[in-house]
Amino acid sequence: MQVSFSAQEITEIVRPKSAKGACDRPVQGIAALAEAKAGELSFLGNAKYKTEVPGTAASVVLLPPDYAGEPKAGQLFLLVENPSAALARICSRIEQALWPKPAPGIHPSAAVAADATVDPTATVGPLCVIESGATIGAGSHLQAQVFVGREARIGAGSWLMPGAIVAAECVLGNRVRLQPGVVIGSDGFGYEFVQGRHEKVPQVGNVEIGDDVEIGANSTLDRARFSRTSIGEGTKIDNLVQIAHNVKVGRHCLLCSQVGISGSTTLEDYVVLGGQAGIGGHITLGKGMKAGGQAGITSDVAPGSFVNGTPAIPYLLERKIAVLQQRLPDLFRRVDALESQLMDAKKSSS
Amino acid sequence: MQVSFSAQEITEIVRPKSAKGACDRPVQGIAALAEAKAGELSFLGNAKYKTEVPGTAASVVLLPPDYAGEPKAGQLFLLVENPSAALARICSRIEQALWPKPAPGIHPSAAVAADATVDPTATVGPLCVIESGATIGAGSHLQAQVFVGREARIGAGSWLMPGAIVAAECVLGNRVRLQPGVVIGSDGFGYEFVQGRHEKVPQVGNVEIGDDVEIGANSTLDRARFSRTSIGEGTKIDNLVQIAHNVKVGRHCLLCSQVGISGSTTLEDYVVLGGQAGIGGHITLGKGMKAGGQAGITSDVAPGSFVNGTPAIPYLLERKIAVLQQRLPDLFRRVDALESQLMDAKKSSS
Amino acid sequence: MQVSFSAQEITEIVRPKSAKGACDRPVQGIAALAEAKAGELSFLGNAKYKTEVPGTAASVVLLPPDYAGEPKAGQLFLLVENPSAALARICSRIEQALWPKPAPGIHPSAAVAADATVDPTATVGPLCVIESGATIGAGSHLQAQVFVGREARIGAGSWLMPGAIVAAECVLGNRVRLQPGVVIGSDGFGYEFVQGRHEKVPQVGNVEIGDDVEIGANSTLDRARFSRTSIGEGTKIDNLVQIAHNVKVGRHCLLCSQVGISGSTTLEDYVVLGGQAGIGGHITLGKGMKAGGQAGITSDVAPGSFVNGTPAIPYLLERKIAVLQQRLPDLFRRVDALESQLMDAKKSSS
Repeated sequence: MQVSFSAQEITEIVRPKSAKGACDRPVQGIAALAEAKAGELSFLGNAKYKTEVPGTAASVVLLPPDYAGEPKAGQLFLLVENPSAALARICSRIEQALWPKPAPGIHPSAAVAADATVDPTATVGPLCVIESGATIGAGSHLQAQVFVGREARIGAGSWLMPGAIVAAECVLGNRVRLQPGVVIGSDGFGYEFVQGRHEKVPQVGNVEIGDDVEIGANSTLDRARFSRTSIGEGTKIDNLVQIAHNVKVGRHCLLCSQVGISGSTTLEDYVVLGGQAGIGGHITLGKGMKAGGQAGITSDVAPGSFVNGTPAIPYLLERKIAVLQQRLPDLFRRVDALESQLMDAKKSSS
Repeated sequence: MQVSFSAQEITEIVRPKSAKGACDRPVQGIAALAEAKAGELSFLGNAKYKTEVPGTAASVVLLPPDYAGEPKAGQLFLLVENPSAALARICSRIEQALWPKPAPGIHPSAAVAADATVDPTATVGPLCVIESGATIGAGSHLQAQVFVGREARIGAGSWLMPGAIVAAECVLGNRVRLQPGVVIGSDGFGYEFVQGRHEKVPQVGNVEIGDDVEIGANSTLDRARFSRTSIGEGTKIDNLVQIAHNVKVGRHCLLCSQVGISGSTTLEDYVVLGGQAGIGGHITLGKGMKAGGQAGITSDVAPGSFVNGTPAIPYLLERKIAVLQQRLPDLFRRVDALESQLMDAKKSSS
Repeated sequence: MQVSFSAQEITEIVRPKSAKGACDRPVQGIAALAEAKAGELSFLGNAKYKTEVPGTAASVVLLPPDYAGEPKAGQLFLLVENPSAALARICSRIEQALWPKPAPGIHPSAAVAADATVDPTATVGPLCVIESGATIGAGSHLQAQVFVGREARIGAGSWLMPGAIVAAECVLGNRVRLQPGVVIGSDGFGYEFVQGRHEKVPQVGNVEIGDDVEIGANSTLDRARFSRTSIGEGTKIDNLVQIAHNVKVGRHCLLCSQVGISGSTTLEDYVVLGGQAGIGGHITLGKGMKAGGQAGITSDVAPGSFVNGTPAIPYLLERKIAVLQQRLPDLFRRVDALESQLMDAKKSSS
């Protein structure tokens, strides 16, 4: 990452409430407080790291408005409402340099069906495949080695990274980002058990993905048995997540890495699932519910609740039980003691 | 999905035991009971949704033979032995339209080694790679961007979807389906710890996959350290499943999404593993055993048993314990009370 | 796998401490003790299988020095310090035949940017993409359909298997092996919640991978939010593992399949994580610590400790509690009994 900003430029980007100190050298990198060197920028995004501020060698530090300490010589403190968001604005500038807008057009090595429709402002990179009847919208970018199947439709301004796969008939909205290796539209896992064999249940639905959705590397979203598997607008899905057939994910959900959701389950809007959580089939997770990492959920969860554990129960109860479980050896000893005391009491009274 | 069937055509496909009502418009879609619109077909596949039948707007509904309700005007009820299987027969017709048989031949953009053998009835799609000595059987279909390594053998009638990878020396049977991004024949995870470093143990076996096996998107099957990792005929594997080196999976097993199986473990026939179950190494899961989602199994499991939890124990016991765990706060209170009562009793008796 | 060694050749490779018996036929395969046929080699690598030695049909058997039994007619026992390591040396010979060194050069179907630097001793296989400014070191091998992004750097002697993806700016050391489908440098999963929407936090760091690292099929390593996600020298990562942004993995760690590590967490050297373990964010796992399969860790772990369970606790305590949990039904009965005894005692004393 090549970065070079003056302290002046950074100040203009983050527009601080106030500043302390001064830095007269260019800023040429970003690093965590404990690792930053002179000439780098750092930030306090998590109160946990507050004690690292006085020791940091960073030349510019983004801090919350109530941070009381003083900078060292040659160090500039910028006090901003949200240091993490301020850093994001700086990174956004860097991102534009890192990921320059590609030139529109179709790379000569791509295999594009004669009857596919590629908007003239779209970019189709090397070794992509676009099958018959597919549509690529304005400004969308198929980076390299991407596959778009028959009759699939990609909206405008979407970015499909290397090796992403969108199978036949699937539909992506606008400004969708598929990280590398994502599979959209694999077959749902459905079989009927007939005379000792699993006969395949045809999976003839598709996957439909709303605007501004992002899906992480190597995640898999199965096409519906019929009708559609759907992901609502603004939802963000991390790496290696599994979404089974006919699942409906609402808008603005967050699904962390390695989550698995079984068939025909519905997530309402603003659901947040921690990493490796596993969700059973044919249930509903209510609006805004949250689940901790590795939670196992097999029945409906009420809107707004926070659950944890397997089987998942309310978070605070689960935390309490987890502590009590560690006291089980002691509890068994106490019950042993009670039994022998009672035995003694009986003997002495008889 | 483009669908158009007359009620007459649907009746001929599902051959109902009896029918009630009539529908004189074409059926142009399939949807769940609660979501179907007029002109669509629906079905009652799970008794859980029985109460949704009277309210459905579907024009044709597949129902079990004992369903007692009456159709609305313009609605046709078809009573069939197994509504889910009947729907599958309809979807099978749609599937043939959705996934037309590709024309045989090798796409000019594919990189096929001069000494590879591709049956003249096979289809090798755009940007596939077939290495030296590999064999592709009659009617098999490498859709696009598929990799088949040196000396690998693909049987007849198999379908390798975009981005599927079959590494050197691996063998697939007939009518095998690899969903997109599947990796067959990555190296097993084996190292010897020598003088502070992990030295690689060469993995020189292969993977052998029986007839009629299906493997889900982005699943990974490691080649054996020596001899073979094997998947028996008719077994179905879901997405993001990990099969380690030298594992032997029997015939007609079902492995749900995100299951992981450690090295040298054997699954006998008809094993069923729920999503995210983790299986230790060097153990045997007996014929027809079942494990719940997220189960953790580290020792042999008897044929026919049903286990759950981590560590996995018999299902009913695990369910009982899960309930008792939620009563732990109460149990601790009860033991506290017993202790103070006994203390009081002692005091009063002394 | 084509193998043919004389007993003499095997003896020269493994240099045994002593030998018993003789075998005068060529050895043409390797198999587990119970499965080996005449003409094959087997070994006792795990004491669990000791009882299988007398019954094995293998013609040559590698055994530990203290193995007391005698070979059958035509069977050769080779007593070696470490049978597993000895087998590895034989497999290493086979490996050289199985995976011949590819000829250097760039396949004509690869799409290599004009300003990328490919060492003349490197091999770039069919349908690879190398973007602008990327560097491929001496003797490295991009097998097929590999992607190397803008300004990425691959060291010397590395092997990127089919479908591996190294995104822009990422850096691989020497002798790194990426199994098929690995994704290096997908975006970290970072969003700010602003007015009901998740706004993307730009991810402008990279991933840096040390020498002699191996990464398993379809694993995903996210680029840092800023600075780097890093994997130390000699670390081995299994299939379907998730490494989030800004994670630092030390040297010589072993991460088993389906492990997930959340953002900004540090693993010191020699950490070992069992399959499906889930690690929270912003914590440190001390040098040489170990975690069992499916462990869930959300706080710092001391160097050298061995933890298990969710939430993870010391291994022996966790094993003990797991046993006590199965005795919960009995404990509840015992407490019921105590309560009624005490009730009776009160009645009788009143």
